[in-house]
Order: sequence, then C-alpha cells, then structure tokens
Amino acid sequence: MELLQSTLQAIQPVNKEIMKQAREKVDALCKPPGSLGKLEQIAVQLAGITEKLELDVSNKAVISLAADHGVYEENVSNNPQIVTVMQSIGFAKGFTGVCAIARAAGAKVVSVDVGINADLPETSGVINKKVRYGTANMAKEPAMSREEAIRAIEVGIEVANDQVKQGVNVLATGEMGICNTTASSAVLAALFGYDPGEVTGMGAGVDSIQHKIDVIRRAIEINQPNPDDPIDVLAKVGGLELGGMAGVVLSAAANRIPVVIDGFISTVSALIAYQLEPKVKDYIIPSHMSEEPGAKIASELLGLEPMLNMNMRLGEGSGAALAFPILDAACSMMNTMTTLEESNQYMQQIMENQRS
Amino acid sequence: MELLQSTLQAIQPVNKEIMKQAREKVDALCKPPGSLGKLEQIAVQLAGITEKLELDVSNKAVISLAADHGVYEENVSNNPQIVTVMQSIGFAKGFTGVCAIARAAGAKVVSVDVGINADLPETSGVINKKVRYGTANMAKEPAMSREEAIRAIEVGIEVANDQVKQGVNVLATGEMGICNTTASSAVLAALFGYDPGEVTGMGAGVDSIQHKIDVIRRAIEINQPNPDDPIDVLAKVGGLELGGMAGVVLSAAANRIPVVIDGFISTVSALIAYQLEPKVKDYIIPSHMSEEPGAKIASELLGLEPMLNMNMRLGEGSGAALAFPILDAACSMMNTMTTLEESNQYMQQIMENQRS
Repeated sequence: MELLQSTLQAIQPVNKEIMKQAREKVDALCKPPGSLGKLEQIAVQLAGITEKLELDVSNKAVISLAADHGVYEENVSNNPQIVTVMQSIGFAKGFTGVCAIARAAGAKVVSVDVGINADLPETSGVINKKVRYGTANMAKEPAMSREEAIRAIEVGIEVANDQVKQGVNVLATGEMGICNTTASSAVLAALFGYDPGEVTGMGAGVDSIQHKIDVIRRAIEINQPNPDDPIDVLAKVGGLELGGMAGVVLSAAANRIPVVIDGFISTVSALIAYQLEPKVKDYIIPSHMSEEPGAKIASELLGLEPMLNMNMRLGEGSGAALAFPILDAACSMMNTMTTLEESNQYMQQIMENQRS
Repeated sequence: MELLQSTLQAIQPVNKEIMKQAREKVDALCKPPGSLGKLEQIAVQLAGITEKLELDVSNKAVISLAADHGVYEENVSNNPQIVTVMQSIGFAKGFTGVCAIARAAGAKVVSVDVGINADLPETSGVINKKVRYGTANMAKEPAMSREEAIRAIEVGIEVANDQVKQGVNVLATGEMGICNTTASSAVLAALFGYDPGEVTGMGAGVDSIQHKIDVIRRAIEINQPNPDDPIDVLAKVGGLELGGMAGVVLSAAANRIPVVIDGFISTVSALIAYQLEPKVKDYIIPSHMSEEPGAKIASELLGLEPMLNMNMRLGEGSGAALAFPILDAACSMMNTMTTLEESNQYMQQIMENQRS
C-alpha cells in the first residue's frame, strides 16, 4: 500500500513549457508544419514526459505479466490453463511472438509471474512475484481481496522501477493469462457502466460468446463492484496481471518515461491506472488496434488513437513492441532533421560555390 | 524501350509453392494460427517474392525521385518550384523527413533527378538522370512525349537495378515534385475513369481545390489519354517522377525483391506499373494511409490495405520508410520464433529436470 501511495504521489504533469519549445522546434524543421502528423505529436509528448528536447528511447523493455483466472472453471476459454505457464516461460526464453517482434525492435522482454496457477521451475527465467495461485472464480465470489489487488499493482510498479534503475527509458505492457479478456471486459463494463454485451468479444477463442457475456454479467451482479473505486473493481472482477500492468503504467509516469500499451487487455489496465491518477494519460502511447470490440471503446476513453492496423490478436505485448520503431522515428525526426533555416543556408552556400 | 521490355518480360509470378510452405511454417509457430495478422501475411508474401523461407530485408533503400511539372503555371500549388531543388538535395544530404525516418530504420535514401526544372550543383549528391527540365503544362498540351515517359520509367528501373546490384534487398518508393498530387489525381482519373472531383485533394497546399479539379479536367479533355495505354496516360497527364517510381516497382518485381510504397503519389505510380504488368501487385507492400482522398481509391484498386494511420502527408517516401520495421518484425517472427512443437519439447524437458 505504501509503494502504491508513494508512486501515485510522485506522478507529476508532463512539462507543458518543454512541450511548447518542442512544438516550436518541430515546426521549424524543413517540412510543411504538421505534415508528419502523429510522429510530431509523439515527439512533442516525449519531450513533455522526459523534460528534454534531445529525445532518447534507446533502452526498451516490454514487461509481460502472467496470471491465471478462477473464472476459467466457467468455460469461458477454449485454451487450457497450462498455456499460461508455457507462454510465460516462452517470454523468458525468447520463444514467443512478442519476443520475435521485440528482438527486431532491439527491446528486451521481462517475464513476470504475478499469479500463475502453478509453481514454475526455478530455471524458467520468469521473475517470481506471485501474489496468489490465480484469482478466485468471480462468477461466484470476488476474484481477489483488496489487499491482493493492491499487491498486484505494486508488483508491476516494483518490476518497472527495477527496469528503470537498470537504464530502461521506454516501457511497454504485455500479458498472458487464459481468460483475461473475460476479466478485461468485466472491468471495462463495471468501471464505466457498459452492458457486458457491448464490450465482450471472442478473445483467443470461446465456444459461445453469449455464455461469456452471461458469466461477466453474473460476476458483476454478484460482486457489485464500486465504479468509483478502481481497486474495488480490479479486486472483484479483474485479474492479477491487469493490476500488474496498471502498476507498470503508474511507474512509468512516476519515473517520467513513456509507456506503450498493447491491445484490449493492456488498454483496460491503463484505464485502471488512469482512474487512480488521471495524469498518467499523458505518459501513455497507443500502438495497434486490437480486434476485440471493447478495444475501441477503451482507447476512446483514454483519448488514444492506435496507429497500427495489423489485425493482430496475440496479446503478450506484441502490438506494443511493434510500435517501438515509431517512437525511434519520432526521436530521429526531432534529433537529426535539419531546420528550414539551416537547409536554406546550406543551399545558398552550395549555389554560391557552384557560381564561383 | 529495350530496358522496359526486358524488365517486363523478366517479371515472374511469386512462388506459390514456397508461400504454401511458409504458411505451414507460420501456422506451426507457438501462437494461435492467424493471431499475428498482417505480420504473418507479409512473411508469407516475402517468402513467395524471394523464394526463401529464411527471410532477409536487412539492406534497405528508399529511392526518392524528383521532378517538376509544367502545370505549375496554372497555380495549382502554393509552393515555389525551388522547393523541388532544395528537397532533392536535402534527400542526398540526409536533411529531410524521409532521411530522419530512414535513419531510424537503418535504410539509405537515394536521391534522383528524373526531371527537375533546374541544373543542380555537381556537389549536390543527387543522381543526375534528368529526362527533361520538368514536364510541359498538361492543361495546354501533353506533359511529355511517349519516348520521354518510357525513358522516365527506365530511369527508375536503372536506379533500382543498380541498388539491387549493390546488395539492397528491399526498396521503397518516394518522391518530390511541386504539383505532383495534381498529376497523380489526373493519372488516377484518366486510367480508371474517375471524375477528377472524386480523386483530388489539397496536396501540400492549394488556394482553391475547385480550380485544381478544373485544371485536371481540362488536362484530360485536351489530351484525351487512352485509359487502356498506361504509358499514354503517363505521357499526357502524368509526371516524370511518377514514371520513375513505376520503374522502381517494375525493377523490384523483376529482381524478386519486395517494394514498399508510400502514400498517394507512390500508389498511383504503382498502379501504372500494375497496368503494365499485373504480376507486380504481389511484390508490393503498402505502408501508411495518406490523407489525400484519392489514396484510399488507389490502394483499393491495388487490393492493398495500408497498415499505418499516422495522419502523415509529407511524401518523400516517409511513410514507406516508417513501415520498414514492420517488415523486420515479420522476418524476425519467421526466422526466430519457436514452433509449438519445439516449445512443448522444451517445457517437458525443464519440467522433468525440476522433478529429478
């Protein structure tokens, strides 16, 4: 609880004065003002986050948090729970989709067990931060206690803080957890008053979407989460990895570094962080548009417009890792592009040399 | 004419057999089939293009072709023609937007004068392949002769072939040319029978869009380009850099390497190549969605769905360069991701080690 409180208190607004200077610098570059669109917006945002005009996102990490869900026993996923174990080890060993994409972007992947329903081998390479062996079945009782929800958030903060101490200057959120689209739809519905039918999709595969919606509706009815208390919502109908990802977002903001969020589950987790501290919004950079119907709603609630349309639905942080090079391009624009004035001076010079 | 003919004859279909093998390989990776969406499609396409399952796009070049337009005298752009000179030199010197983005992606930018309306200083670094000093005013007469149009295409082929000889294994098309959205809208309207009003936008800035539409309409009426003859359309209402970019696309296909196309002008140029040889379509990879109204139409005609929504409208090849890292990610997925079977074997092994 102390770490969560101190982290929330450490979060400051982005620096509007530096952003104004960054905007002036971007507008002075040798191109029509605004013509690089979102690349310009990202550069200005990065300046506001880091309080620097010389931008640097060279040290990248995807933090992929894994946990299990008690609601698994309601048959809301076609995949067996052992997949959570396998993929979290796969993250640590560099096997999986997010690893391949992160490798291409020069980013590392940090695999964290925040609540897998099994003991992992010591040689797994997964950081053991297990809060409990998966959540309870939210269709029957609260997924976890309030204390466990806070602890899950703090796991995300701890892991992210540790990465920042090691020199990481841009984070991305990723996850693994069979049934975690069920939990994400439940959190989104409970926090903002949506009917579960509006925000529930197929996830990684389910026999009956109507059954999944019914289970979510039951979980909300039984637990009555308080929409004004994001930790209550997380505890009653959320998931441990959702809490962890919210913690990564809070840590990024407290450490004044950008955080790239992935698809539906990451975006819902970012919304939990946003409800705890609205200032985090300016530290978040979107990546790809997930195929889940709730993803668009969650992005709009955060005022974010995903940049990549890849029809991807893997999760893991794969879409966020794919967006890292866009940040590199924004930095390169800011740090290496010539201003119109410099360009004019140079042109005048070589024209004069030509004449003489 | 000989180079164009021999290039067209060299273009073969992508290898469907290797694509089938590539699809099997992608489906065997440790992820739900199809869950990496367009990344998977690109990997399969790259295999079909290169006839290899081990993918490599490590040697990247953006070819940015610059030329001027006689229709400039009709006041269809707010920018002075000297900008074509300045930006083409800026490409060669690494000053401009596309250079900053290419730098971040590890790509080089090749600047080519295919028809700038000025003599460039010898020290400019721009490759001199000038066909003529800009086109004639298409609102009064054909923009260029048929021979010049063919020569412009061949310039693109020559420059691209030369890059391939130097080891480049992925190309992107880019351009610079005041008034070249006017020429692109005219080519799109003339080739596919659109009313100029449907395919004409603001470009880099124009006082009256209606005037721009009227000029395009007049150009088509006066010149009567033959929609069944893409070279006739290019000659009468096109531009030298449009021909050059069509040539780059043809060279890429003939050399069995992928070519990433940029926004509106690049896509229209790719359509010219496509009308000359429909097989080129399978060698093309889209990048970003330009803000020009004709861009969506041109992309759909090629059956391409741009992946990046960046609100960019710089041109130069900047959007194509921003898409290079997506190709890197597709290659990394194909070359480095573990199969489900390998992953299962590994998991079994570490579980056994744990027990013993």
